[in-house]
Amino acid sequence: MKLYNTMTRQKEEFEPIHKGLVNMYVCGVTVYAPLHMGHIRTYISYDCLAEYFRVFKNLKVFYVRNITDVGSVVGDADQGEDKIELKAKDEHLHPLELVDRNIKGMWQGLDAVRCARPNISPRATMHIVEIIEAVQKMIDRGYAYEIDGDVFCDVSKIKNYGMLSGNTLQKLEAGARLSIDDKKHNPNDFAVWKKARTNSVLKWNSPWGVGYPGWHIECTVMSTKYLGQTFDIHGGALELAFPHHENEIAQSYALYGEQPVKYWVHTGLLLRDGVKMSKSLNNYITVDDAIKKWGAVNLRWFFVNGKYNSPMNISDGALDSTNAGLERIENMFSALKNNIGSTYNTKLHTNLEELRQNFEREMDDDFNTPNAIACIYDFVKQANIIIATHIYNEQNVIEITEYFAKIDKVFKCFDFLYSRPTQDDSQLEQQVKQLIDERNKCRQAKDYTKADALKQQILALGVELCDNKDGTTTFKIK
Amino acid sequence: MKLYNTMTRQKEEFEPIHKGLVNMYVCGVTVYAPLHMGHIRTYISYDCLAEYFRVFKNLKVFYVRNITDVGSVVGDADQGEDKIELKAKDEHLHPLELVDRNIKGMWQGLDAVRCARPNISPRATMHIVEIIEAVQKMIDRGYAYEIDGDVFCDVSKIKNYGMLSGNTLQKLEAGARLSIDDKKHNPNDFAVWKKARTNSVLKWNSPWGVGYPGWHIECTVMSTKYLGQTFDIHGGALELAFPHHENEIAQSYALYGEQPVKYWVHTGLLLRDGVKMSKSLNNYITVDDAIKKWGAVNLRWFFVNGKYNSPMNISDGALDSTNAGLERIENMFSALKNNIGSTYNTKLHTNLEELRQNFEREMDDDFNTPNAIACIYDFVKQANIIIATHIYNEQNVIEITEYFAKIDKVFKCFDFLYSRPTQDDSQLEQQVKQLIDERNKCRQAKDYTKADALKQQILALGVELCDNKDGTTTFKIK
Repeated sequence: MKLYNTMTRQKEEFEPIHKGLVNMYVCGVTVYAPLHMGHIRTYISYDCLAEYFRVFKNLKVFYVRNITDVGSVVGDADQGEDKIELKAKDEHLHPLELVDRNIKGMWQGLDAVRCARPNISPRATMHIVEIIEAVQKMIDRGYAYEIDGDVFCDVSKIKNYGMLSGNTLQKLEAGARLSIDDKKHNPNDFAVWKKARTNSVLKWNSPWGVGYPGWHIECTVMSTKYLGQTFDIHGGALELAFPHHENEIAQSYALYGEQPVKYWVHTGLLLRDGVKMSKSLNNYITVDDAIKKWGAVNLRWFFVNGKYNSPMNISDGALDSTNAGLERIENMFSALKNNIGSTYNTKLHTNLEELRQNFEREMDDDFNTPNAIACIYDFVKQANIIIATHIYNEQNVIEITEYFAKIDKVFKCFDFLYSRPTQDDSQLEQQVKQLIDERNKCRQAKDYTKADALKQQILALGVELCDNKDGTTTFKIK
Repeated sequence: MKLYNTMTRQKEEFEPIHKGLVNMYVCGVTVYAPLHMGHIRTYISYDCLAEYFRVFKNLKVFYVRNITDVGSVVGDADQGEDKIELKAKDEHLHPLELVDRNIKGMWQGLDAVRCARPNISPRATMHIVEIIEAVQKMIDRGYAYEIDGDVFCDVSKIKNYGMLSGNTLQKLEAGARLSIDDKKHNPNDFAVWKKARTNSVLKWNSPWGVGYPGWHIECTVMSTKYLGQTFDIHGGALELAFPHHENEIAQSYALYGEQPVKYWVHTGLLLRDGVKMSKSLNNYITVDDAIKKWGAVNLRWFFVNGKYNSPMNISDGALDSTNAGLERIENMFSALKNNIGSTYNTKLHTNLEELRQNFEREMDDDFNTPNAIACIYDFVKQANIIIATHIYNEQNVIEITEYFAKIDKVFKCFDFLYSRPTQDDSQLEQQVKQLIDERNKCRQAKDYTKADALKQQILALGVELCDNKDGTTTFKIK
């Protein structure tokens, strides 16, 4: 599998550092405001990527996505006010009250669009001790300096600063955008620890007085604490590449003398009707409203249909045509299940084998979900012709259903796969229990072929089996 | 209003320290295992108490309930292993993975039984800096000592140790239960900072080496950080009174020279079929199963029917008879709405006035919810006789509905109040908008009596109004 590495600006063969395990860190939400559509897009992408590694590549994934509950400042400049402090003051809330509320909303939104929870979701404020230690280490190693309660990273000491974003010091110094801050040695130095404002609530004692961490150092501390000094994938939206990720690299260099990440993977920009979404432009849509308007599954399917690192444009028309694609697949399944004949169709089998190859080939090419989905449509087109002939049997149906269920573990949009005869769960439960008993007898008799066929039959009913260590089999109706 | 104060062992008039504001801290969940029924009981009690303060006493409530994500050890003794570390090891998970999973489940369970989220839910690991500072301060003030990486509170220095639980040092020393720990000066000294085990994950550098906080110090640090050195109410289940709360008092004495809490309020024991619920006794029921078996609302109503500080016994029979009570109220409402006549009934009005007085009198008597509910049943009995006569009018219905809706802001079980004519939300919305327009015209014309009547009419449709500062009125269909 190849992934586009922002660092090298090319697709690279993906080889995890530790065999069989992918260590992935994705920059999480700054919980000063409700989740926005950009978050949804980004996190659906990494959710699919993690599931693809798990389901198709048989890799374990340890997925860490932080929660920024302090340290992200307005304008992302060193002189801004903490976004959470500011918003909480506006709303007459304790900052933690605002944070708790937005964390609740964040999970509601991400659960709704079926993003599996990351393995861990550490919060920045859980790491103040480690952050203070990291800042001290940067000072001790000569990469940071304190002035009047602020601590800055000295970027002039960082070899190859700008290697990720291309914003080298030469380029930055030539640019007029950065104003010179009197306190800093160099206008491009950035804060790793900030002096607290007089009335701020989010603050801790440190060797440099009362303050709070810089945003960049939080991610360096959390990613390396849980994944090691170097890890496989660091993700986030493209706009985080500079300065956030560039500064994470600088900090890792200062702390450990090395770049922390093997593959820098960034998601693309999200537009609304062709322009950047923003409250001031009045083209902004909240996640809640988008879910109400288009439905959570359709929204997910829309994002899955875009390539993760291309710009995407959200619009009513785009959403409608994506949904039409989902319906095309659904219609094939409904025809497939209604016209079952008695003869196994080898052509249909071959078509499915082609889909297997083509789908994975496209996914392996830098996670090209739109091309992979085009392969699905190709299959649907050809399958529909065969389905109309009725010359295929239950075994064909099981094969196709099973493969689409495998795809669905990644995309999580094919609810129609699990449509069941109109019977209630208790009847289905009865039926499943009988099939499990039968299967267990086959297993005892070592007739594994029949046992597997029965497992597939159970799967086709939309039921997940789990063979426990103690010899029992439990199941879950999806 | 009177509340039973475990400290003084008597009901005391409740007077908050700061006029108009109740600062309340309740010991939260140790997230090493799924939520259990005892949690549900306890947190429903404090949820009702907080809502009662808000709705009936017009008090602001700042409710802090912590999350213990490190430091609670097996057996709650100083030598046990951290519960989260141990469980995570068993399940081959990173401790944070276990914690995140259980926090998710905790919110699912508590949201299901309609407990409003506390204002803030701080996690222990967000306060390691403050905990280390508190431990250092205890040492500096001569109330704690370090031995080999552990720091113990010296209880012999604590004036009146045992004042809450009655477990004075004399009594404790006479008891045979405590074995002498060689490291401690006194067998009753307790750990405020613990040396980390070799392979533990949850650990931080400290002036005393690598370790983690004691459970008791976490609550002292979090409660006083957010609520001040002294605050109004400290809650938790009765079994926390000793040693947990006793040790919180000791720590506050060591840190600030004073007892932290004005009212110590404890919830009672929960039994299943007369015996303590435990996995080993096989009479344990998970929250998920209990919700499936009895329904979240019935479960909540069951607990509301018990006095918060009495032992309660959960059993199928008990749940059934409580539900019957809820049905009795529901039946009255359905009759009330179906038999509306045209004459205002002053007797029915007087009955309602009596309910108002009696309900609040009982609630004010140490939050006696069962007696308060008995007053509701008395009202229902008398109202049913009048309802059968049809001699009452819409105004009576509105008055009664309004008062039950007020009660329901505390109990949150009267879903039948909000049953609406069979029309969809868009029709209802239309209707409500017209009523709001009409009401706004009355308000402009300063006819506030009619405006209020319209507000009540809208409320009876199950719609909450909110008059915004900018003069607009928004609404929410319940």
